[in-house]
Amino acid sequence: MKPATAGAVERTVQQRSPSGSNERRDTVASEVPIALHYNEAPFAVLMATPCDLADLALGFSLSEAIVESRDEVRIDGIEESVDGIAIRMAIPALRAGVLEDRRRNLPGYGGCGVCGSATVESVLRAPPLIASELRIDENALHRALAELRERQPLNAATGATHAAGFANADGELRLVREDVGRHNALDKLIGAMAAADIDSDSGFAIVTSRASYELAMKAAQAGIPLLAAISAPTSLAIALAESAKLCLIGFAREGHCGVYAHAERLTHAFPL
Amino acid sequence: MKPATAGAVERTVQQRSPSGSNERRDTVASEVPIALHYNEAPFAVLMATPCDLADLALGFSLSEAIVESRDEVRIDGIEESVDGIAIRMAIPALRAGVLEDRRRNLPGYGGCGVCGSATVESVLRAPPLIASELRIDENALHRALAELRERQPLNAATGATHAAGFANADGELRLVREDVGRHNALDKLIGAMAAADIDSDSGFAIVTSRASYELAMKAAQAGIPLLAAISAPTSLAIALAESAKLCLIGFAREGHCGVYAHAERLTHAFPL
Repeated sequence: MKPATAGAVERTVQQRSPSGSNERRDTVASEVPIALHYNEAPFAVLMATPCDLADLALGFSLSEAIVESRDEVRIDGIEESVDGIAIRMAIPALRAGVLEDRRRNLPGYGGCGVCGSATVESVLRAPPLIASELRIDENALHRALAELRERQPLNAATGATHAAGFANADGELRLVREDVGRHNALDKLIGAMAAADIDSDSGFAIVTSRASYELAMKAAQAGIPLLAAISAPTSLAIALAESAKLCLIGFAREGHCGVYAHAERLTHAFPL
Repeated sequence: MKPATAGAVERTVQQRSPSGSNERRDTVASEVPIALHYNEAPFAVLMATPCDLADLALGFSLSEAIVESRDEVRIDGIEESVDGIAIRMAIPALRAGVLEDRRRNLPGYGGCGVCGSATVESVLRAPPLIASELRIDENALHRALAELRERQPLNAATGATHAAGFANADGELRLVREDVGRHNALDKLIGAMAAADIDSDSGFAIVTSRASYELAMKAAQAGIPLLAAISAPTSLAIALAESAKLCLIGFAREGHCGVYAHAERLTHAFPL
């Protein structure tokens, strides 16, 4: 059976309830190991939803500071195998050399978003300072949030995925990307923005998850001046946002939100 | 100001709403880089909430198949620095040798739960088959879920954390652990179970998140026969659960749930 939605598959589920049990087909989010290769060398495996893979590869390369612009990445192939998907990319020799150093310095294996890093120093990159002086109005934020709720087909079908969206300064949602991993959703968004030549300081990003360190780091690295999450921020995300001049917003829902860093970027929509 | 809850800190938030703006103190979940060292060598950094750290270190060592029993791990020190926390562990020389091989094979850097792995083959470990024939009654599952809702102090204070709990076969919740990362919460639980000498096949685990591949793998590796998540499972988690004889349950809420693998382990509480 072919699923109606990209990134989803059909599986049988036994539904249990106080009134009994019945078996039915359910739409489940795909999660696949995606191996990223740079210049013929394997670099990392992401567990991700196999849609918008070119966006994921480009966005990861940018948000992890592997390259500085989209022109430095060429995708040579996306190959499916029984076990997963390999994405082969070519990057300039200089960048590959830096990557080789980083690989030697990050020999680990981990269970979270900064994994592969073996030392604390290698995790805590100094994010670039966001130069943009852009201000966003509260009305624009809530307009984008309302639009995002309607533009998550994969989550509507599976209940399993996060979304990341980028909106113009006036709150018009320009791009949305979905994935089982919140960092992958943001990477896909950052890649799609680069591919579409959308300036990261022309608006703001919203995510349907909490705001953790990696998300704040990826947004700052991409030069996005404001990141709003519908759930809570973590202490380290707040610290990073402070130092990067990133406006960090949590619990952004239905007219309300909490601003945890650089509140000057979010202008009041309503009289005090 | 000292926070009332372990793993939380106080931060200032500017609260915005249609009626205006006000500044107040908010309780935020701590997220700290935790470096795990085995036999003096750095191995991985987890972004985790700094409570129950001995449980985290032991649980990670077990669930990532670095050691086979708790007796093989000795925690020599937990050291705080400005940048994070280092946990120094000693393991048998044989295990450290295997680890050294794994490190050489996993040179990467990633953005997700299997990070550090550079090739797909290294991610897709074959999980051990769960030997237990334990059956769990639906009533026991829902009893444990109801208890778990009341036993999440960190999440009650911050709204930012996941919980993992282990219940007896009759649904009595024996242990709960919380963390900003869902894999860390499960690792803390697995470590706490080992420390308390609780057999992993004496009951079942529940998590307040989705059921992704890593969570199913960690549960299977720990020998837990049933894993119930309050949100959706992913395709790869279902595939892993099938092959490991793990009963995988999603959307477990208020009398309802969906059984995605090994439904024979969950017995009906109600007449059909």
